[in-house]
Order: sequence, then C-alpha cells, then structure tokens
Amino acid sequence: MYSYQTLFDFTQSVFEKIGISKDEARQAADVLMRAELRNISTHGLMRIPEYINLWKNRRITVTPQYKVVHETPSTALVDGGKGLGLVTAPKAMRLAIAKAKDAGTGWVAVRNSYHYGIAGYYAMMALEEDMIGISMTNANPLVAPTFGLNGMLGTNPIAMAVPTDKQPPFVADFATAPIARGKLDILEEQGKNAPEGLLQDELGNPTSKAGILKEKGSLLTLGGDTNHGGHKGFCMTAIVDILSAVLPGANFGPTVVPTLGYVKDKTGGEDKGIGHFFGAIRIDAFQTAEEFKSYMDEWISTFRNAKTIPGQEKVIIPGDPERISEKDKMENGIEVSRQTLSKLKLLAEELGVSPLA
Amino acid sequence: MYSYQTLFDFTQSVFEKIGISKDEARQAADVLMRAELRNISTHGLMRIPEYINLWKNRRITVTPQYKVVHETPSTALVDGGKGLGLVTAPKAMRLAIAKAKDAGTGWVAVRNSYHYGIAGYYAMMALEEDMIGISMTNANPLVAPTFGLNGMLGTNPIAMAVPTDKQPPFVADFATAPIARGKLDILEEQGKNAPEGLLQDELGNPTSKAGILKEKGSLLTLGGDTNHGGHKGFCMTAIVDILSAVLPGANFGPTVVPTLGYVKDKTGGEDKGIGHFFGAIRIDAFQTAEEFKSYMDEWISTFRNAKTIPGQEKVIIPGDPERISEKDKMENGIEVSRQTLSKLKLLAEELGVSPLA
Repeated sequence: MYSYQTLFDFTQSVFEKIGISKDEARQAADVLMRAELRNISTHGLMRIPEYINLWKNRRITVTPQYKVVHETPSTALVDGGKGLGLVTAPKAMRLAIAKAKDAGTGWVAVRNSYHYGIAGYYAMMALEEDMIGISMTNANPLVAPTFGLNGMLGTNPIAMAVPTDKQPPFVADFATAPIARGKLDILEEQGKNAPEGLLQDELGNPTSKAGILKEKGSLLTLGGDTNHGGHKGFCMTAIVDILSAVLPGANFGPTVVPTLGYVKDKTGGEDKGIGHFFGAIRIDAFQTAEEFKSYMDEWISTFRNAKTIPGQEKVIIPGDPERISEKDKMENGIEVSRQTLSKLKLLAEELGVSPLA
Repeated sequence: MYSYQTLFDFTQSVFEKIGISKDEARQAADVLMRAELRNISTHGLMRIPEYINLWKNRRITVTPQYKVVHETPSTALVDGGKGLGLVTAPKAMRLAIAKAKDAGTGWVAVRNSYHYGIAGYYAMMALEEDMIGISMTNANPLVAPTFGLNGMLGTNPIAMAVPTDKQPPFVADFATAPIARGKLDILEEQGKNAPEGLLQDELGNPTSKAGILKEKGSLLTLGGDTNHGGHKGFCMTAIVDILSAVLPGANFGPTVVPTLGYVKDKTGGEDKGIGHFFGAIRIDAFQTAEEFKSYMDEWISTFRNAKTIPGQEKVIIPGDPERISEKDKMENGIEVSRQTLSKLKLLAEELGVSPLA
C-alpha cells in the first residue's frame, strides 16, 4: 500500500527524467494518479512502461510543438506535435473551456497525439466551470465492425461529466466496446474465460478465450450480434473514430499505428498519431446554471432511488463508484499489483530514478 | 403499392385538416415520407394516428408558439410550445446550422416538443451545408437502467450524418436500446419470441416474450447484463436523456408523459414535453472541407472493403441500406401494411379527407 503522494512523486520523477518539463510531468502524473484513485488501474501506473517505450522508439517526443492549426469562435484544431496525450489533452480541453466561455460551447479536435489516459479526467475539468465536459479518443484497432473479420476500431471511450448542485456530479466514462482489453488480460492471467458473445477468433468464429486478441482475434462491438443490437455498438464506436480521428486528420480505425506489440501494423502510411475530441458546454448557454443543476439533482435522485431487480441494491449512478474509491484511496492508500511494481522497479533502475520502496 | 407523391399528399392533407399550416403540414409529411423511403416504416405513416390522438387529447397544439428562449453565439434553447416535433425540430435544426455558419458549431436544445420522427432526418439536413449533423431525442420510458426494475428511459436514438466527397454520406441513425419497440410489436404479431437477453418482466426476470412491454416489462440497455457491457449502454441512453431533456428543461426519463397507452403515467407533474438536442459542426471549422471529405471517403472505403466473417458479404456502412431503399421506393413505389392502411382509412373518414385508394 502506497500513499497517493509517494506514487505521484515517483510518476512525476519518471516523466521528468526522460526530459519532460516539471509542469508537464506533474500534469501527466496527475492524470495517471486520478485513474489510480478512481480504481481504473488499467489506466494508471501500469501504463508507464508503455509510455516510456513510445519515447524509446521515438514515437513520441518530450518537447512537442503543440500548435493550434485553425480556429473559429467555438472550435479549434490542435496538432499535438507527437507529444504524450497526457500532456497535450489537458491543454486542448482548457482551450475548449475557454472557447465555451465566449461562444457558449467549445470543441477541440486533436491529431498527432498518443494515449491520453482516462477519458473522464478531461470531461471532469469542465465541472468547476459549470460546464458539461465531453471527451473521446480513438485507439489501437481491436474491435471488429459488424460482419467484419478483423479488429479495425479502438475500444474508443466516451466520457461526459455533468454539473450538479447538491448531488455529486454525473460522470460517465466508458469504452464503447463491451469489455476493456485490460480486463481480458486479467482474465487470461487467472486462466479464466471471457463471457460468451464478446470475442471472435481470426476466422470469425465465436470464442470466449480471453487471450484471443493476441492470436489475431478481435472484440465484437457493444451489443454483440445484430440480433442484440451490435450494429448500434458499431455506430457508436465509428462515431468516436470519426470525431476523434477523421475530423482532426489523425490516423483512423485500422490505420492507427499500434502501440501494442501483438497488433500487426497494417498502416504502411504516415503516422499522424491518434486523435481526441473534446467538448465543453456552458450549462447557462441554455437554462440558468441554477435551474439546470437543481434539475440534474432531480435526475440523479430519481435514478438513485429507483426500484431494483432482485439481488441488486441500487441503480448505480455513473461516477459514484469511482468517487467513493477516490476518497477511500486518498485516505487509506493505493494498492499496486506485484507485476506493475516489478516492472516499475526495473524501469527506475534503467532510468536512474528513486524506485518505490 | 403507392407512389411517393400519393402518400405525401395524403399525409399533408391529414395534417392540414387538423389545422396545421400548409407549409408546416408539408414539412411534417416530408419527415414521415423520408422514413417510408428509408424503409423505417415504424416511423412513417403508421405513426399518423398516434399524432392525431395527441391532438385530440390536447397534448399538442396545431398553432404552437415556437420560441427561442435564450441564445449564445453557438447555442440556443428553444421552447416548442407543444407543437408536433415534426414541425418544431426542422426549425431548431436550421437554427443550429445558422449558428454553425458564424460560430463554427451550433447546438440547439428543445423542450415542450413531441415525437419528431426519424432522428436521421435532422442530422442529414446538415450535409448540404458541409456540416456534420447530430440529432437525438428522449422518448417514452421503456428501458430499465442497469439493475433497475422498471422502464425509466426511452429508446433514445442518436443520429450523426457526415459529409463526403465521392462516397455517399455516412448516416448513422440508431436507437441506443438494443431493439426498437416497433420490432417487438411485429414479432408479437407473428407469434415469435424476441432474442434472449433483451427483455425483463415486471419482476425483473429475463424473458423473451415479445409483448412483455405491454405487461409492465422493460427493455434492457444495449449490451444486456453487466458482463456484456450493459452498463455502457445505460450510460449512452442516459447521456441522450440528459442532453435532450435535462439541458433544455423537458420531462426526463420516467417523468416523460407517455404517449403509449400501456405505459403507466408515473409523472403526476407538469408536462414540459419531451426534448431534443441538435448539433451542426462545420467541417471547415477544423480542416478544410476538401481535406475532410476526401479523408472521410477513405474511412468509408476502408470499412466497405474490409474482410468479412464467413457467411457475410460485406461490412455495412451506416446509411447504405437506407439510401438504396430511398432510390428503390422513389422509383418503384412504397408498400403500406394492411393494418396501417385500414387505420388510415378510418382516420380519413373521421377527418373528412380523401382516403388512399
């Protein structure tokens, strides 16, 4: 068990060591640590070696030229200059928020970026400004389109954070694919199968083998087959790909240059990075902020107090479990897996930073 | 089999007969006929009796006070004044497009409205302006939130239309619930079961009984149970409810005053109608329109030409089947079901308009 501050300082020191400025290293650490606090450890410290590999392979630079390529009153196109998404994305979201102050809403699309951590971090930045925050990104191609044989789309998450008055905010942060690849990794390690109806092998046959992505298999879309609405899941994941990657001119769908060793690079083309799409909506651009927030409180309490099916205690409001976890881990410390610890120890030695005790 | 024009004229005459102005009746008919052409007959002529009932029950007015309540450079809040959604929604979408011309994007939230037909109609209005169009709405509460016992959310559709150069446009238009209630009605009529994993009865037990919504049952969210990502489907449907209804101050979730006889009115409160949310994004607010459209062509051809699983011919690009249907039905005529024809005949007699032959 480690304190928040210990893990934060370690993470910051790693990023500083590879040449990222102090402020930006702190920013990147803040995103990863927020994932740890929110119990989304698949997007926390265990990602550090992956980021460092991107730097070693010269896929990212530690001194990127962040550039606003084009703008209108409510929009901007940002070129991340091949920086870490963890550093570029907060700037882009701040720009969306600034645009919203003047124009009512702000929308920023980013190209030439890399993995940005949890989508929810950026959506939540809007909350203190009394804005709805929206964040999405494309990613490694692992999801097969409906009737498709191969992984061509990322697990493409969407996050939306909504301000409230007395209730805690609504924070949805979810992959548009039915299961995260991190969860499949864990099932595989435990020798367990994935649930039926989520995966197919390289021939297109249904499988529940958790490690199938490493054997050219792919994830199905949310919903599964067309009888269960899988084509709607395809639409959702495609929409995220179009807004995050086609709109800014990043690599889309199967042309994303993979950061996972087991995903074959099918691109052969230019690496314009992955892309993100951020939105900020001033709630008082519609009703007054007071009216909106009290009405949103009502929405939350209506669903929170809904009748449940047998065996379930309550309807979970998006963001509730993560908020409870944040409080708990900030007070009581954060557990880091043995596997992640040993990887971080090696990394610390290699880079020459103080290891975690 | 009827010609497009015959059905259009009939539909317009019904709306004119109840006192809607000629222009607005033509607009409403255009939305319904587009659904017929696009082979979404659940949102076409068969809805006319439902609209007329809303008028008879004084739920809608034929001379609504459409009002822009508040605006910023990129947003507006519209009060539909209890008009037909088919009439209010096109005006609201035109306002979003006008805002986007000046501000880069335009976002219009609508309250005090009613069923607006197919979401895709409004999204597609943006295409000829070289804009991405977005449209969503809330609806009758039929979908249970994850772990919830009762239908509390609508099948809340999302549509997004994306401009292209040589390829036909991408037009996604889908309920965020796994199956449409219209499809369940058809299965019920045929004495068939629904697929497993989509429905629960009033006690929360899984069922495949297609008529279960009429017996206090409910739809599950896209994905089904939490092992299959149903909580992500809940997030999607909730997001549509928040943007469409909480943001403009319409009735949200279970407080929607039902238009279906078999849904119990649990509201007891004020009827602020249902709500819609429209967006228009100028593609040249990011890259140039030429760059974007040719890149979007590339997206489409990449997915269209993807390898398929055995037994499937191709990956279907959202909007393709509907576009092919439009061309076919415009040339060869439109089939109307016996059941719909007999209802429309009664309605024509009752209102005193020329019936369909």
